[in-house]
Amino acid sequence: MRTHHLAVIGGDGIGPDVTAAALAGVRAAADRYGFAIETTEFDLGAEAYLRTGVALDEASTEALRRHDAVLLGAVGDPRVTPGVLERGLIVGLRVAFAQSVNIRPVRLYPGVESPVAGVSPDNCDLVIIRENTEGLYTGGGSISHPGTPNAVAIQNSITTVPATTETVEFAFRLASARRKRLTLCHKKNILVHAGQLWQDVVDEVATRYPDVEHDYVHADAMCLHLPLDPGRFDVVVTDNLFGDILSDLGATVQGGLGLAASANHNPRGTAPSMYEPVHGSAPDIAGKGWANPAAAALSAALCLAGLGERDGALALEAAAASVLAELPALAGPGMGGDTAEIGRRIADRVTDVDPAKIGDPERSLM
Amino acid sequence: MRTHHLAVIGGDGIGPDVTAAALAGVRAAADRYGFAIETTEFDLGAEAYLRTGVALDEASTEALRRHDAVLLGAVGDPRVTPGVLERGLIVGLRVAFAQSVNIRPVRLYPGVESPVAGVSPDNCDLVIIRENTEGLYTGGGSISHPGTPNAVAIQNSITTVPATTETVEFAFRLASARRKRLTLCHKKNILVHAGQLWQDVVDEVATRYPDVEHDYVHADAMCLHLPLDPGRFDVVVTDNLFGDILSDLGATVQGGLGLAASANHNPRGTAPSMYEPVHGSAPDIAGKGWANPAAAALSAALCLAGLGERDGALALEAAAASVLAELPALAGPGMGGDTAEIGRRIADRVTDVDPAKIGDPERSLM
Ligand SMILES: CC(C)[C@H](C(=O)O)[C@@H](O)C(=O)O
Ligand SMILES: CC(C)[C@H](C(=O)O)[C@@H](O)C(=O)O
Repeated sequence: MRTHHLAVIGGDGIGPDVTAAALAGVRAAADRYGFAIETTEFDLGAEAYLRTGVALDEASTEALRRHDAVLLGAVGDPRVTPGVLERGLIVGLRVAFAQSVNIRPVRLYPGVESPVAGVSPDNCDLVIIRENTEGLYTGGGSISHPGTPNAVAIQNSITTVPATTETVEFAFRLASARRKRLTLCHKKNILVHAGQLWQDVVDEVATRYPDVEHDYVHADAMCLHLPLDPGRFDVVVTDNLFGDILSDLGATVQGGLGLAASANHNPRGTAPSMYEPVHGSAPDIAGKGWANPAAAALSAALCLAGLGERDGALALEAAAASVLAELPALAGPGMGGDTAEIGRRIADRVTDVDPAKIGDPERSLM
Repeated sequence: MRTHHLAVIGGDGIGPDVTAAALAGVRAAADRYGFAIETTEFDLGAEAYLRTGVALDEASTEALRRHDAVLLGAVGDPRVTPGVLERGLIVGLRVAFAQSVNIRPVRLYPGVESPVAGVSPDNCDLVIIRENTEGLYTGGGSISHPGTPNAVAIQNSITTVPATTETVEFAFRLASARRKRLTLCHKKNILVHAGQLWQDVVDEVATRYPDVEHDYVHADAMCLHLPLDPGRFDVVVTDNLFGDILSDLGATVQGGLGLAASANHNPRGTAPSMYEPVHGSAPDIAGKGWANPAAAALSAALCLAGLGERDGALALEAAAASVLAELPALAGPGMGGDTAEIGRRIADRVTDVDPAKIGDPERSLM
C-alpha cells in the first residue's frame, strides 16, 4: 500500500487541536482511498524555543526533511517576542525546504456567507499564488544610528529569476488546468525594479502557455477588485508581501481566516512541502475547543493533493466544506461542536462524500 | 478679505471635469464663509508630457510653490508608459513639496451603502495617515543582468526619523482631537528594520500624547479588521506602501474609490499641500460626464481645512455628502446627473447646509 510519511508540527495555541482534527480527516481519506499515513510529531514552537533558545534546530530540520510532507498548525505565543517564531520556524522552513510557491485558494463554499455583497460560490473561486521565499521576506537591511534622530532604516527586497519563474510557471500551469486566466499583481509603477523583473518573467513564461490569457493589476487596486468582483480572477500570481496581504483579504471575502488554507509548495520536489492554515495560534482561545478546524482540514486536503492523492484530497475538501455549511457559526462557542468533534464529523463525511458532488470535479486543487 | 491662491492641475481623463466640479463647491464655500479664492490652472499631465518629454518641469514646480495649495484631478493616459506620470508628477510633487503626511479619511456617509455587511455610518469613521515620501517609494534599487536568468532585482525601502516622526506626530495630534485611539499598521515581524524604526518613533511620540491609546496591527491582519470591524479604528498610521494598499481597501469599505479623498500634507508649511481624489484618470469614461465629483469635492474640503477655513470645509464636506446620499448610483450613466451638474448641486447645497448637521461638529477634519 502507498504510504505517506507526514511530519506534524502542531505548534502553539490552537495549532495542535486543529491539526489533530485535520488528521482525523486525512486518516479517513486514507482508509477510503486505499493509502496509508504515518505521522511523526515534532515538538517545535514556543515551548521548544523557550527551552532551547532556537526556533528551528538543525536536527529537526534534517528529520523533517526525510518526510513526504509537513503539516503545521500554528505558531506564536505571548511569551515569545513577536516575529521570532514566525521568522525562525515558518519562514525558516519555507526557505530551508525551497517552498517557493505558496498556494492560497480563495473559494466561497456553498452555505458559507461572505461579508461582501454580491460574492457567491458562483463567482468566488480563485487561487492566489504567492512567491514564498523572497522579496522583502529576505529580511536584509539595517538601522543606522538606531534610537537616534539620525536613524535610517533600510529594508531590502530581493527578487531572483529562479524563484519568480518557479512561482509564475506554477501559476500558469494551474491557470491552464482551470479557467485559463492569470493576473499578475504587483505595484510596478512604483517598485520599478522588482516589478519589471516580475513582468519580464510573466511575459516569458506566458509564451509557453498560449492558452492562458494574462493581465496585470496593481496591489492597491486589488483591494477594490478582489472583494467587489472576485469572479474576474482565476489565478493571481504575486510577490511574497503582496501575497501575504491579499490572501488575508481573500480570507475575508471567503468568509474568514478560519476557512483559509495554504500550501507552501516546493515545486522541484527537492524537499517536503508544508501545509498550514492561514490563521494564527489564537492563544486567547487555546484549549477551549472554539477553533474551527476547517482551515487546517482544507490545508490537509492540499497536502493530499500534493502527495498525488487527488481523490482523497477532493473528498476531504468536500467533507470539510459540507460540514462547514452546517455549522451555526464559523468559530467560537456557538460553532455547534468543539474542534475535535468537528474533526470527527469531517472524517465521517469523508467516508460518504462523492467528490464529484462539490464544485467542478475537473478542477485542479494544485 | 482673506484670499487663498490655489494652483489647479486638472490633469488627464476625468481629472479636469471632477476638479472643475469641486471648484464650484469651493467657490460657494468662499462666498458663504467670507473668503476669496484665486485659481491658476497648470497644464500638467499627459499632454504636457507628450509635448515636452518631462512630467514636471522646474518652472512649473517653482510656480506651483508660490501658491497656498494645489488641487490635483488625476493623471494617467494610455499614450504614456504606465508609472511615468504617477512617479514624475504625483510622487514628484509629494517629495518636492515635503508633503510627508498623506491623509485619507475612511468615512461611510449616511445614505451611501457599504458593500461590506455590518458597516454603517456609526462604525465607519477613521482616518488613515500614510507616510507619503519614503519607504519603497524612494524607488532606489537596480536590476542586475536584466533580461537574463541571472537577473536580480533589488528594491530598497528607506525610512528616516524626520518624515516618520512628522507623520506619527500628525497622527497622534489628530487622534487626540478625535476618539483618542491610534493604531500603527506595519509588518514588523518580517520588515524588522523598518518596522522597528516605526515602532520606536510611535513609542517616542506617544509619550507626548498620554491621552491617546495606541496599539499595533500587522498589514495583513488589517485586511480582516478594517472591513469587518472598522469601528475598532480611529487613526491608523502606516508607511507609504501599506497606506497605498489599505486606503484602497478603506475606499472599498466606504462605498468605492469614487468617494475617497486625500490630502498630501506638508506639516511644516514649507511648501503647499496638495489635495487629490484617490481615484485615477479613468480614460475610458473621460468626457462622458459619468465621473462622480464627490471624491474631488471631499478632497477640496480637506484643502479648505488645510487653509484654515474650517467652516467652509465642513460645509463643503456636508454638501458633498448630502448630494451623494441622493444619487441613484455612485458613478456611471445612472448617477442621476452629469459631473458638472452634480458639482453645481454640491455648490448650491454648500449655501444651505448647516455644518453642525453632519457628524460630530467637534470633529477635526485634519
Ligand atoms: C506568520 C507570518 C510569518 C506569515 C507571513 O507573513 O507569511 C503569515 O502571515 C502568513 O501569511 O503565512
Ligand atoms: C498614482 C500612484 C503613484 C499613487 C500611489 O501609489 O501613491 C496612488 O495609487 C495613490 O494612492 O495616491
